[in-house]
Amino acid sequence: MIIDMKNKNIVPCEINFTNWYTSIIKEAKLIEYGSVKGTIFFLPNGWKIWELIKEKIDKNFAKLGIKNVQLPSLIKEKDFIKEKQHVKSFAPEVFMVKSNKEDKLFEPLIIRPTSEIVFCECFKKIINSYNDLPVLFNQWCNVFRMEKNTRPFLRTCEFYWQELHTIHQTEKEAIKQTLQSIEIYKKIIKNDLCMPFIFGEKTLNERFGGAINTYTLESLMQDGQALQCCTSHYLGQNFSKQYDVKFRDKNNELNFVYQTSAGLSTRIIGGIIMTHSDNNGLVLPFTIAPIQIGIIPIKNSDNISLKIKEIEKKLKKKYRIEIANDNNKNLGYKINNFQVQGVPFVILLGEDEIKNNSLTIIWRDLNQKEQIKFDDLNQYLKSNVKNFDQRLYTKAEKHLKKAIVKVNNFKEFEIAIKNNKLVEAAFKQSQENEQKIKILTGATARCIKCKAKPNSKCFLTNEQATDIVYFARAY
Amino acid sequence: MIIDMKNKNIVPCEINFTNWYTSIIKEAKLIEYGSVKGTIFFLPNGWKIWELIKEKIDKNFAKLGIKNVQLPSLIKEKDFIKEKQHVKSFAPEVFMVKSNKEDKLFEPLIIRPTSEIVFCECFKKIINSYNDLPVLFNQWCNVFRMEKNTRPFLRTCEFYWQELHTIHQTEKEAIKQTLQSIEIYKKIIKNDLCMPFIFGEKTLNERFGGAINTYTLESLMQDGQALQCCTSHYLGQNFSKQYDVKFRDKNNELNFVYQTSAGLSTRIIGGIIMTHSDNNGLVLPFTIAPIQIGIIPIKNSDNISLKIKEIEKKLKKKYRIEIANDNNKNLGYKINNFQVQGVPFVILLGEDEIKNNSLTIIWRDLNQKEQIKFDDLNQYLKSNVKNFDQRLYTKAEKHLKKAIVKVNNFKEFEIAIKNNKLVEAAFKQSQENEQKIKILTGATARCIKCKAKPNSKCFLTNEQATDIVYFARAY
Repeated sequence: MIIDMKNKNIVPCEINFTNWYTSIIKEAKLIEYGSVKGTIFFLPNGWKIWELIKEKIDKNFAKLGIKNVQLPSLIKEKDFIKEKQHVKSFAPEVFMVKSNKEDKLFEPLIIRPTSEIVFCECFKKIINSYNDLPVLFNQWCNVFRMEKNTRPFLRTCEFYWQELHTIHQTEKEAIKQTLQSIEIYKKIIKNDLCMPFIFGEKTLNERFGGAINTYTLESLMQDGQALQCCTSHYLGQNFSKQYDVKFRDKNNELNFVYQTSAGLSTRIIGGIIMTHSDNNGLVLPFTIAPIQIGIIPIKNSDNISLKIKEIEKKLKKKYRIEIANDNNKNLGYKINNFQVQGVPFVILLGEDEIKNNSLTIIWRDLNQKEQIKFDDLNQYLKSNVKNFDQRLYTKAEKHLKKAIVKVNNFKEFEIAIKNNKLVEAAFKQSQENEQKIKILTGATARCIKCKAKPNSKCFLTNEQATDIVYFARAY
Repeated sequence: MIIDMKNKNIVPCEINFTNWYTSIIKEAKLIEYGSVKGTIFFLPNGWKIWELIKEKIDKNFAKLGIKNVQLPSLIKEKDFIKEKQHVKSFAPEVFMVKSNKEDKLFEPLIIRPTSEIVFCECFKKIINSYNDLPVLFNQWCNVFRMEKNTRPFLRTCEFYWQELHTIHQTEKEAIKQTLQSIEIYKKIIKNDLCMPFIFGEKTLNERFGGAINTYTLESLMQDGQALQCCTSHYLGQNFSKQYDVKFRDKNNELNFVYQTSAGLSTRIIGGIIMTHSDNNGLVLPFTIAPIQIGIIPIKNSDNISLKIKEIEKKLKKKYRIEIANDNNKNLGYKINNFQVQGVPFVILLGEDEIKNNSLTIIWRDLNQKEQIKFDDLNQYLKSNVKNFDQRLYTKAEKHLKKAIVKVNNFKEFEIAIKNNKLVEAAFKQSQENEQKIKILTGATARCIKCKAKPNSKCFLTNEQATDIVYFARAY
């Protein structure tokens, strides 16, 4: 049986993508807008998604010996301005802090836009010799950037992330860590968030301020705009030299550490929404759904209540469940309400079901009712939860693959970008060329696919290309 | 066999309590000092304790239907100044935020010293009628207060806490929540942190700015100073009226919500340290120890390595374990290193142990070696972990009970305070009287034990006393 319960409060995706996005966020009760411009209130449904992502990352980081720490949010302005490329990137965006008293001892401070500097200060205090290396520290925290154009999850003045900071004896080891960090993200983003992506190094213009290399995973939203899911940076000795982070090596000589950092932020929640959701509301992968299973009694009766208690007992140790037992709401409202919140699996239970010792079930993505035997429930879930996630991934992957277009010249490029494509092109890397493309088309280089072959020409300048690069408009 | 391995880097408690405390924090690698005055770096050992406390609180809150949210750190100054008592308490301590650009649109902001105001803004957006109540929200976050005299965990310019904020239809329901919140803290602080406490309402002078009642748990440190473990506030309609948080009640009339808040912060870690630790370093209750079991191979041999792998397999699913297998360090160093970090249970394994199919074990608080049979390990731990925690609690409880002294007049009071006692006295509550006591003796009212009997006299003024109050010097 096909069910069709369009949610009237969701703006259809094909009519206005931006309003679709914001209506889903609102209807699924993920956030409310803060009263300070550019801030949001993460409501329980929104914050729980982040907590579940955190669990996954913590677990994977722990396996590599990465440990959580918590460093201050406040940085002395005079320390902040030391690393030139870093300041150039972040200075226009920082919040300044002062005392509300006349206090001559009070030094000008900034609130962290990122924490490379504070981690350097910390590392400096805890390492002496090569025996103390590597140090692998991760931090979950809020960071602050003054943004003019804000949108929930995607760009806000205060947001949340994890930032991994590591220091090593050698360049080789640090580069290995940079790639290992991105491998963890790949695994989680693919398996748990069910998001397909392209992977590569960032171009000159898009690199993190102060990094030697930046690696990124870029996903494609349903409107054809790319979204940077996470980044991993090889920082070399850029920061350790500026902030004097030294260790005594095996030959008893002082040397600067080699450093990496990597991060994934709450903007990924925006990415999840824009990858999977539909006109009925939010769609969430099973692992990160705050409510995984919704249970609806079709009628108010003792029989049904008893059976629901049985189901609850059966499932609650393994799954996050919620029972819709508000007698003032009708069945349609209840199904709708679970759907709009992205509950992956809904169970309906009425007298008919009890008679047949069965359950009516609805998977969030299929929008059709099915019957299963009550006794098979656990086994059914065990084998079908993965299928659900797999369906979400496959659907998104199809969309990504279909969106990739190769172009040879600027005209083709312009058309492809206008058609919301993810464009693959031979390109001669230079910051000037990147800026030109951005001004002319609104597109930016998302990442480098690979080196260009000899004799391949840049689609923009017709000179010898350096790389094959992915371009798209991006969030 | 008694082992006596004093750690030379720990300043003996009886020589200088303050230096004892800071030397433990340093040697147990809990923190390093931040470069901005009054801030600290939480290192893995320090932060993990907080993460473990968080787990306990989250689990207990979830049972009551309390959900985690995350609200902004930035508050408009003009909003902050509305609740008069609240501002009076916090204004001297707030950090002001400004833009680093010339920006006339930028409104003056403060960074949260606490979040009652932001929660009011949030509640206002999400409630309409009595059907939406109660709302039970909790937040884990950093808060900021400019402090002149700072000490790790106990008082820092940036610290971490959970803040529970709830709104209700009636006064009765809100007061019930205020007490229920403190009951959860009681359970965790007693059972998991093994800290005894006195419980009661705060006096006029010590009440939270904007609260009608503040309840507190106060623990006693080994130096006789009290430490406020947590607080729970009944806020009445003080905030809801100022910030206009209304709901439509069952009679369709608009009414202001009744509100509560409650919090426990990272200062509790300071309390744990000063309650349990000794001259060998940190002592931690089992539940919140980052490493619960340390395993030391006495020699480097294949036999021992194999056995240790077996132990690891046996224990690692249930306990947090660490193996000291650095061949450059000797046995003494390894035992010492686990002791100073407060590892509750240490296992030694050498050839002798393997021959006898046994293990040598050391409990952190007993400082003596014992032998147990290898095959009994799991069962042994199961029955002895609780005993360990119980021993910590009982020891601290004895100290607390011994420190309580009843006094009848100011002279007795002065002497008792000088002797680092927790003083119980009949008192006539007034802010003036409280200030007088603070100036004269350095002691403050910790909490109210109960109402005073008719005819009992205030120890300070000799007038009719209103309450029996606990006084002490406090952190």
